[in-house]
Amino acid sequence: MAQSNGKTVLVTGGAGYIGSHCVVTLQEAGYKVIALDNFANSVDDGCDGSIALKRVEKITGEPVTFYKCDLLDTVYLERIFQNHQIDSVIHFAAMKAVGESMQYPMLYYKNNIIGMINLLEIMKKYNIYNLVFSSSCTVYGEPEKLPITEEKRIGQSITNVYGRTKFFIEEILKDVTNSDDKWNIIALRYFNPVGAHGSGLIGEDPTKQFTNLMPFISQVAMGKKEKLTIFGNDYDTPDGTGIRDYIHVMDLASGHVAALHKLEKSHIQIKAYNLGTGRGVSVLELIKTFEQTNNVKVPFTFEARRHGDISTMYADPSLAERELGWKATRSIQEMCSDFWRWQTMNPVGYKTVLTNGHNH
Amino acid sequence: MAQSNGKTVLVTGGAGYIGSHCVVTLQEAGYKVIALDNFANSVDDGCDGSIALKRVEKITGEPVTFYKCDLLDTVYLERIFQNHQIDSVIHFAAMKAVGESMQYPMLYYKNNIIGMINLLEIMKKYNIYNLVFSSSCTVYGEPEKLPITEEKRIGQSITNVYGRTKFFIEEILKDVTNSDDKWNIIALRYFNPVGAHGSGLIGEDPTKQFTNLMPFISQVAMGKKEKLTIFGNDYDTPDGTGIRDYIHVMDLASGHVAALHKLEKSHIQIKAYNLGTGRGVSVLELIKTFEQTNNVKVPFTFEARRHGDISTMYADPSLAERELGWKATRSIQEMCSDFWRWQTMNPVGYKTVLTNGHNH
Repeated sequence: MAQSNGKTVLVTGGAGYIGSHCVVTLQEAGYKVIALDNFANSVDDGCDGSIALKRVEKITGEPVTFYKCDLLDTVYLERIFQNHQIDSVIHFAAMKAVGESMQYPMLYYKNNIIGMINLLEIMKKYNIYNLVFSSSCTVYGEPEKLPITEEKRIGQSITNVYGRTKFFIEEILKDVTNSDDKWNIIALRYFNPVGAHGSGLIGEDPTKQFTNLMPFISQVAMGKKEKLTIFGNDYDTPDGTGIRDYIHVMDLASGHVAALHKLEKSHIQIKAYNLGTGRGVSVLELIKTFEQTNNVKVPFTFEARRHGDISTMYADPSLAERELGWKATRSIQEMCSDFWRWQTMNPVGYKTVLTNGHNH
Repeated sequence: MAQSNGKTVLVTGGAGYIGSHCVVTLQEAGYKVIALDNFANSVDDGCDGSIALKRVEKITGEPVTFYKCDLLDTVYLERIFQNHQIDSVIHFAAMKAVGESMQYPMLYYKNNIIGMINLLEIMKKYNIYNLVFSSSCTVYGEPEKLPITEEKRIGQSITNVYGRTKFFIEEILKDVTNSDDKWNIIALRYFNPVGAHGSGLIGEDPTKQFTNLMPFISQVAMGKKEKLTIFGNDYDTPDGTGIRDYIHVMDLASGHVAALHKLEKSHIQIKAYNLGTGRGVSVLELIKTFEQTNNVKVPFTFEARRHGDISTMYADPSLAERELGWKATRSIQEMCSDFWRWQTMNPVGYKTVLTNGHNH
């Protein structure tokens, strides 16, 4: 058990993939964690609790205070703020499926933007101004030069609704900070989070139709899917497949703790940081590394490029290193082996009954 | 009384300045009008009715069905949709004070964006897909070349929150239309609406602190304010003062009827049109015209430019002329004389008791 630092963080979307890993890192750093989630894209235990967060408690030995709460339910949200002395908020809760966002734009704008505004209003009411916001490299749109720095103007040529919700929220946060300099906000622009906690107890378990690469690779490796479809092998890249900046979810999680520390020791109003490794990896490289690391086969087939997909994207993460003292340290091999451990220990995700006889 | 065309239009923000003038034009064109307003920036009669809309009834001889309703109150909003067979919606309801929007960004994002999304959701539920949306030339930001056409990319260098809410909503409407091609939407980008209905019965009566030029000029002319402050006389314009495209509110109103006709006879999915005259008029020209037309004095003083103000802005309105068959026809003199008639007949706005002994 970690030494308490006496601070309490509210984590919205705490039962989700990135949220749950972040809770581990927060607890290990001494934070008391209050988590909320609406289970829109995470698994409940049948009694309004989160299986992921019960696994987190196993990992850290610390309790997670959890509320099933939707950010659109401001009455219930306020109860949480009434009941706890919260120092900072990390806001993960959002809808994030790119394809779905194009089909249901109103749902995405409503949940993501209104959720954010409701949270800001209640934070202000309770005099809480430290916020870490989950943004995305999607806000950059098509890159003009690589690696991407935070200097690049955001909001240009964003090809999907999900990305636009993140862009709009970053703009809203700037306006909110301009209107009241008590706000102290860091927007973290995630590149491509993959991997899982090394224990194999928590990992990515999308309840919705997913298109992320690693869960797909992993399902093919397990034989649950026949083969992987790679969209586009004619990009202007060494092997013709798209290049992304994959980052281990535990590195991402520690980036949030670094951001919180920054907010606690300085008043920066609002600033955005890239969270990436700075290294671009192609789809074929990722597959090969996954196969070699885990000694599995991942058959694939090529199809035409998908509309809106970008050829190459990777971060310049040096600003976060300079100002947050944070750097991604985990290799692609670790991302692959950690993901595979999670997947093989939990073949049906959180619905898996672990060998100790109960799943949480 | 006009011949009914058998169609019903819901007008949100119907008690406001542009909304109330538009209701006149709609009724004269044969539409049945259902109006709603939350009186956030309009005057109620003390019994949840709108003074402006009662004046409208005097002008047209037609009843206006009115509901005091806030678009954030989806339960009440749905009752209106249940009670009426609505064919199209014109959505004026929004907060619109530029300065205030910088002070209270959350309020603006919440009211404007959530109001729009709530309206879209309820429209979809009741199978109503024809929408005219009040946008603004503010979405263009700083112009690169003049006159501004609809081709110019929107969202660049917008200097205030109000403008960003309009930009975000235009983007949301595009995404919504992409997701479901039943939508049939026209965004009208207003330039600078001024003037009043020729009867003097309705006009601009801002209940909030206002910064619009003509109400200011008019208050100075009446002696309610000592003098007018002109921000900036060193712009790169012939007389050094800012240039805008002032448009008579009744021309603007008829632009909405033209847009509705377009939506009724063709399925355009989504398209934006400038509503302006195409003629730029400087602050000094407007003051001089106001003085000469109305035989009044408007003393003024110069101060430094305001941050975020643009030097020159005027529309290329030719797309609306070609595709909507609409063109602004009223002169600057008419804008000045109509505004002055309204102002002198109603020195304290809608709170004025008219000489027939009652004010509605």
